Amino acid sequence: MAKSDLIEEKAPAPQAGSSRLNRFLNSVADAGLDLLRSTTGAKRPPKRTLLQHCHALLSTTGEASGTAIARAIVEGYRALETEARIEFLGALAREFDVDADAILAAGDSYRNDRSLKSLLALSAAVEPARQELFRRINTAPDGIATIVEMRRDLRRALDDHPELAAVEADLRHLLISWFNRGFLELRRIDWNTPAAILEKLIRYETVHAIESWEDLHRRLDSDRRCFAFFHPALPDEPLIFVEIALVRGLASAIPPLLDRLNGERGLRDPDTAIFYSINNCQEGLKGISFGDFLIKQVVLELARDLPSLKTFATLSPIPKFRSWLTREMQNPDSALVSGENRAALQAMENDAWIESHETREALEALLLRLCAAYLLEARQGDHPVDPVARFHLRNGARLERINWLGDPSSKGLRQSASLLANYVYDLDSIERNHEAYVVDHKVIASAQVTRLLGNGRR
Amino acid sequence: MAKSDLIEEKAPAPQAGSSRLNRFLNSVADAGLDLLRSTTGAKRPPKRTLLQHCHALLSTTGEASGTAIARAIVEGYRALETEARIEFLGALAREFDVDADAILAAGDSYRNDRSLKSLLALSAAVEPARQELFRRINTAPDGIATIVEMRRDLRRALDDHPELAAVEADLRHLLISWFNRGFLELRRIDWNTPAAILEKLIRYETVHAIESWEDLHRRLDSDRRCFAFFHPALPDEPLIFVEIALVRGLASAIPPLLDRLNGERGLRDPDTAIFYSINNCQEGLKGISFGDFLIKQVVLELARDLPSLKTFATLSPIPKFRSWLTREMQNPDSALVSGENRAALQAMENDAWIESHETREALEALLLRLCAAYLLEARQGDHPVDPVARFHLRNGARLERINWLGDPSSKGLRQSASLLANYVYDLDSIERNHEAYVVDHKVIASAQVTRLLGNGRR
Amino acid sequence: MAKSDLIEEKAPAPQAGSSRLNRFLNSVADAGLDLLRSTTGAKRPPKRTLLQHCHALLSTTGEASGTAIARAIVEGYRALETEARIEFLGALAREFDVDADAILAAGDSYRNDRSLKSLLALSAAVEPARQELFRRINTAPDGIATIVEMRRDLRRALDDHPELAAVEADLRHLLISWFNRGFLELRRIDWNTPAAILEKLIRYETVHAIESWEDLHRRLDSDRRCFAFFHPALPDEPLIFVEIALVRGLASAIPPLLDRLNGERGLRDPDTAIFYSINNCQEGLKGISFGDFLIKQVVLELARDLPSLKTFATLSPIPKFRSWLTREMQNPDSALVSGENRAALQAMENDAWIESHETREALEALLLRLCAAYLLEARQGDHPVDPVARFHLRNGARLERINWLGDPSSKGLRQSASLLANYVYDLDSIERNHEAYVVDHKVIASAQVTRLLGNGRR
Amino acid sequence: MAKSDLIEEKAPAPQAGSSRLNRFLNSVADAGLDLLRSTTGAKRPPKRTLLQHCHALLSTTGEASGTAIARAIVEGYRALETEARIEFLGALAREFDVDADAILAAGDSYRNDRSLKSLLALSAAVEPARQELFRRINTAPDGIATIVEMRRDLRRALDDHPELAAVEADLRHLLISWFNRGFLELRRIDWNTPAAILEKLIRYETVHAIESWEDLHRRLDSDRRCFAFFHPALPDEPLIFVEIALVRGLASAIPPLLDRLNGERGLRDPDTAIFYSINNCQEGLKGISFGDFLIKQVVLELARDLPSLKTFATLSPIPKFRSWLTREMQNPDSALVSGENRAALQAMENDAWIESHETREALEALLLRLCAAYLLEARQGDHPVDPVARFHLRNGARLERINWLGDPSSKGLRQSASLLANYVYDLDSIERNHEAYVVDHKVIASAQVTRLLGNGRR
Repeated sequence: MAKSDLIEEKAPAPQAGSSRLNRFLNSVADAGLDLLRSTTGAKRPPKRTLLQHCHALLSTTGEASGTAIARAIVEGYRALETEARIEFLGALAREFDVDADAILAAGDSYRNDRSLKSLLALSAAVEPARQELFRRINTAPDGIATIVEMRRDLRRALDDHPELAAVEADLRHLLISWFNRGFLELRRIDWNTPAAILEKLIRYETVHAIESWEDLHRRLDSDRRCFAFFHPALPDEPLIFVEIALVRGLASAIPPLLDRLNGERGLRDPDTAIFYSINNCQEGLKGISFGDFLIKQVVLELARDLPSLKTFATLSPIPKFRSWLTREMQNPDSALVSGENRAALQAMENDAWIESHETREALEALLLRLCAAYLLEARQGDHPVDPVARFHLRNGARLERINWLGDPSSKGLRQSASLLANYVYDLDSIERNHEAYVVDHKVIASAQVTRLLGNGRR
Repeated sequence: MAKSDLIEEKAPAPQAGSSRLNRFLNSVADAGLDLLRSTTGAKRPPKRTLLQHCHALLSTTGEASGTAIARAIVEGYRALETEARIEFLGALAREFDVDADAILAAGDSYRNDRSLKSLLALSAAVEPARQELFRRINTAPDGIATIVEMRRDLRRALDDHPELAAVEADLRHLLISWFNRGFLELRRIDWNTPAAILEKLIRYETVHAIESWEDLHRRLDSDRRCFAFFHPALPDEPLIFVEIALVRGLASAIPPLLDRLNGERGLRDPDTAIFYSINNCQEGLKGISFGDFLIKQVVLELARDLPSLKTFATLSPIPKFRSWLTREMQNPDSALVSGENRAALQAMENDAWIESHETREALEALLLRLCAAYLLEARQGDHPVDPVARFHLRNGARLERINWLGDPSSKGLRQSASLLANYVYDLDSIERNHEAYVVDHKVIASAQVTRLLGNGRR
Repeated sequence: MAKSDLIEEKAPAPQAGSSRLNRFLNSVADAGLDLLRSTTGAKRPPKRTLLQHCHALLSTTGEASGTAIARAIVEGYRALETEARIEFLGALAREFDVDADAILAAGDSYRNDRSLKSLLALSAAVEPARQELFRRINTAPDGIATIVEMRRDLRRALDDHPELAAVEADLRHLLISWFNRGFLELRRIDWNTPAAILEKLIRYETVHAIESWEDLHRRLDSDRRCFAFFHPALPDEPLIFVEIALVRGLASAIPPLLDRLNGERGLRDPDTAIFYSINNCQEGLKGISFGDFLIKQVVLELARDLPSLKTFATLSPIPKFRSWLTREMQNPDSALVSGENRAALQAMENDAWIESHETREALEALLLRLCAAYLLEARQGDHPVDPVARFHLRNGARLERINWLGDPSSKGLRQSASLLANYVYDLDSIERNHEAYVVDHKVIASAQVTRLLGNGRR
Repeated sequence: MAKSDLIEEKAPAPQAGSSRLNRFLNSVADAGLDLLRSTTGAKRPPKRTLLQHCHALLSTTGEASGTAIARAIVEGYRALETEARIEFLGALAREFDVDADAILAAGDSYRNDRSLKSLLALSAAVEPARQELFRRINTAPDGIATIVEMRRDLRRALDDHPELAAVEADLRHLLISWFNRGFLELRRIDWNTPAAILEKLIRYETVHAIESWEDLHRRLDSDRRCFAFFHPALPDEPLIFVEIALVRGLASAIPPLLDRLNGERGLRDPDTAIFYSINNCQEGLKGISFGDFLIKQVVLELARDLPSLKTFATLSPIPKFRSWLTREMQNPDSALVSGENRAALQAMENDAWIESHETREALEALLLRLCAAYLLEARQGDHPVDPVARFHLRNGARLERINWLGDPSSKGLRQSASLLANYVYDLDSIERNHEAYVVDHKVIASAQVTRLLGNGRR
């Protein structure tokens, strides 16, 4: 896609940039460089390959020269093309791995002596040398940003290079420790936020793309809110952010929320906060989840600041509805799509159907019913097929409403035939819903959604 | 000692206090509390013991309620007396430990199948459940401070309670990861620093106690410097700090440096920076070393800001000299202390010897020679007996001078018969010295120190 | 007094110190110095007297060299002894004064032509050149601090040097403009405030002296508040500050408020805020009043932050009661002090009277009655004799209570025979009281105070 | 013009916006409102006209209610249409003016008694009541911004309403005092600056319009600099800003500097700083000059930060060259434009001449010569006709070069037939040049410019 291509080329990685911490680490590395030079008598630090640097970094005991080597690794890695990066990571997989014999020996010792000492020896044996290597790389300027970037590169390469899985597991282990929620900071983003951070919102927003700075400004107006999580070592990099519209009543469609000329702005006493876009920013932090925590925290912030708010709800895409529907249509035994309907649904082949009053009339009730079935009944294992539904239901939200013509954009048509869902976060029932979902695999939904199934089902 | 008693009673633990992060985590915990209440229908959260809270925290999947439980554990732990804390930690040692059988089974699997999957299973098996428990406690307000405090409590209790060693090992493992040098921030401390931080310097300074705020002010004057490391999640808690005097020539004694009426202040173009006191602040972070890094970093900062500085050196205590000397004196076979000298040295039994011109004359050359022998030759394994010498030599410093009457305080007399040492940090030789010390166990010293040994020795 | 002596010698003036603005102005001045040098070809700027610098500053048109000259004036003035300063200010009075003939001529022109042009010419003529001189001095680093200091010096010298009155009038005019309330910033002072500002509280507190840093810490505890006004060009200099105790019920005595071991701290839900000390910090800003505004503003801040507060009141000295009383006692015709009482009052000659239960019993009712008469009836022109009463009554407060043994310190006995007054700031009646005081010269007091007069008076 | 129309409609005035100071002043005003209500017993403050509010504000003595009235005036004024504003200002001119008879009486008193008292009385008489009114309006939230706005409105209306000149003079007097250079803050603007400030650069840039956020980003790149002055009471409002390109050699044309795809960025070791755009932001502060000071200060900042810089120069428009040239062409007696040239110059009537190689060839030498004559010899009184030349020459800069095809934009052609000028700020000669310009009316220019005049002239 154009978007991710852009990211690939123009913005290869999150950068801690000019933060105080980074300047500090840079000065250490500079000094370490001097140390290296004076030790070796050379004007330039010894030319080494990236891998040689890695071995040197693991064996050094000098702190400052260690930082200089770590920086050389960071700079070296960042200068590599994708292919060379994969090669380098492959070398890390081979050369800094665990020693299987040592593990087995430590295992035997533990079998004979279940002491703490034996256990720690076994623990040490099962930890690849890579983890210490990455801990030391983290001391370089932009160290943490580069490590996050490495994991992104790994995740993209994993399918073709399964041998990298062990490296990915190491990074995941470290990042889970370092991005512990206790260290994250929630910040409000508004028009007083530095442009360097705002432009990242433009780059990272993929749910409803931000078209321009004017569009962004609209989304940060007085009747809008935006919050993001940050890590103190990446002060300029949002990790995840959420966009909210303050409105009256449950919003049913995206266009009015994004409309830049929309006259409602500055609304007094809104009663509803609509979470209309949530974006993870760092591909390299995927699976190190902050999203559920973010929504609930923002609900709390808003409830405190704006007492007029009574309802907290999302306006969410239903991303796999159309592809599921296509499979149903192709399934001759489908209980949901019968012959007549199948014909009607064919009309959707061309996006233009949305322009025809008649087609819309013909499809509305049918699609709402099918979508209700999709969200309430289509399962992947114990849980709904729809990933967005899984996310919010697991968080304890309730499926409140399905909205016809909620997102008539081309993407909206392709994904969900224009439908959008509202999930309501009701603080009083959130834990109960969460439990019902996790333990009993129940999809909590309002009566108006279950009624769509018709025939008194459910 | 009085000092640590004071810490025990009046200041039980570092507190992240009123930081933004803490206020944020508190609001989450408050909300989580509401969630817990609404789930259980109770007005108050269920009364549980600390241990039950721990089990609940490990099994919950709700983020916000998790934070509420974590806070209950933090508050509960802080309210405990020392004995009860030990009991609680003992329970953690038993109830959240590894499952030895599971480890052995995982070890067997790995023996049969050296796949990543088997390795990760074994890694998971050797990690006690406690580690995840502590990671979750970290999400509470004051979580990290409490975890540091737990380690302090453990370290104090270990001698009497060796069964707690496994818990200590877990905490150490986590803290090494979280206090990675890449996350620490160096800050200058001066008279514009908030009083809440300054009073901690007074509390934590143990090398040369700070007598009063006036004394502190003197140490932050324009011809003094002070730097500390901070962790972003403990913004009000110095982890380690160093005090420096900017002077002309190598300082040989402490009293002029601490003298509050000393006229030299505001010295123009000092040529020497004397590091006269380094203090680790957090007993709970002992062994998670920042000290070596701090000194070198501060040398770099000072060299950049004050180009007139040519020499960077310490004025350091020699803490175990007297106790070593006493052993030598009691050793009839001592090669260093012969009969006549032994008699002369008896004079030191009473601190008043320092007042007598004659005794001082009689002892000066003798003590300097013995101290040189102590620092250059007395070994514990491969390394010097003296802990301060070990620290600086390992850092790559050079033992430059031993100063007669450097610290005539009662403590100085008791520790080192008034002697103090200068260690010089010379950026050009620091790495080479470090290597010589680490690899060849060499004590790098100036000619004037080795000459003290006499007889052409060394 | 010892205090002001101290200020005189050790702290000759407020210093903007190391603020950003100052560093900036310094760099300009440095550059200007270079310009001056390169213009004149000299290595050092031309040696000139302070007065010559002043003439040069007024005639220069170069901005940067102007700043260099302004700095030379600031530094020169600060280096002068008191006597030399008076001389210099005297020269300003003579050499930069208005031109009387020019004023008369401009007056004649205006008489003939009442145009704006004539008016502006007359305005320009009546403004001494000094005002422009001071405006230019203000561009130097520490410029504003020095100008405030000049006014202090002038005020102290005025009695002996009435010829300086015109200079004082110029400074007053400028400072009223520059310290416009719209530019002032209210800041809360607490234990997180930089020590450099906190030590100024110790220095400037004259109502109830701060004995030590521990004493100061007590006054900034969680059940205490402190607020100050700052000017953006003097970011480290409080202009005026107020100390508040949060308590239950109207406080009647100072000692419990200042008691460092006092167990009440951390009081939950205080209902009363006691303003027990207000201090103007800058002698050079006397008469450029912020005090009334400060109290009301702080009342608003506290009311918003602490909804449990219902009463806002002072616990105030009655500074001139004893001296008034002495005059009454010496007045044989006094209607207030009759023979018997006069004898009883003699007991106060020695401060020890406060130790005697009997004397206290004998004096309590008598002194309360006399004090009520003093506050309610003793006038200087239309207003009360007591300056503190004048201040609070003018602000719209109500005299609420007179407290026996409120301040048994030696100063308290000397000033007011241990009595203290409470003035209540009641937002609902503050403007009405103010009006009654200003227009009708009424002293608004509670019934319990007026009852003290006895005999149904008032 | 479109630009200023936009400003008129969408951004009527600088706003201190959500600054701390403003929130503070608002809370005072809110409270004052309550006071007003409780005084009058009314729910809403008394409905008064703006003028009545002004009279009330001048007569009130209550601080808080004063702030409430001041805010009512600010809000009322901002809600007015242009015409109503003029009317209101006209009323201020009439109703709060000086009392001519009082002035004359005070003048007579002064004639008889040239005492300070008489002088101050005369000073008071010549100061219109408006000045105190404005001082009090300044205490409202957005007070200073509104006062700056009033002056803008006045300046626009003066031609049609000469009776407003006295009001303008009052505002000018106050603003000169309040915007004393000693209070201004120089800040660097870069991509980390809040978007709310950056968008103001887009709005205020009129020399070389900023087309988009991408254009702006280019101008804040690592090889660009931008600095602005701010006043502490208007923290979000740049007063004046300057844009700089760091390049090698004296830049001769604008397009490469603004080119967004330009490959030079990140240039190492630039030797020249080109000041290519300076913009005053606040029409209401016109004539309260900061520009000269800004340039010199920025030269100092850059010289310190980037030691590789050797030359500091502008690339400046020559705004009135074409209109002067047109007059010369129409002047049959012009000594500069003879018959043949007049014909050649006709070619410029259509902007397309710039596309024709031949025409360009034909005009280059001629236009350069004429422009040199314009800048060096065309006078308005003692000084050059060209306003930009006047500004830089007065600052002490030297006219260094005239650049053919420097600005081929439509605006550039219309103003100066594509020519641009470089003025060099050379710290060593700046004061000397300034003096030569101010005292002897000399235009300091390089030999290459004077040579353009030809014939050995000059």
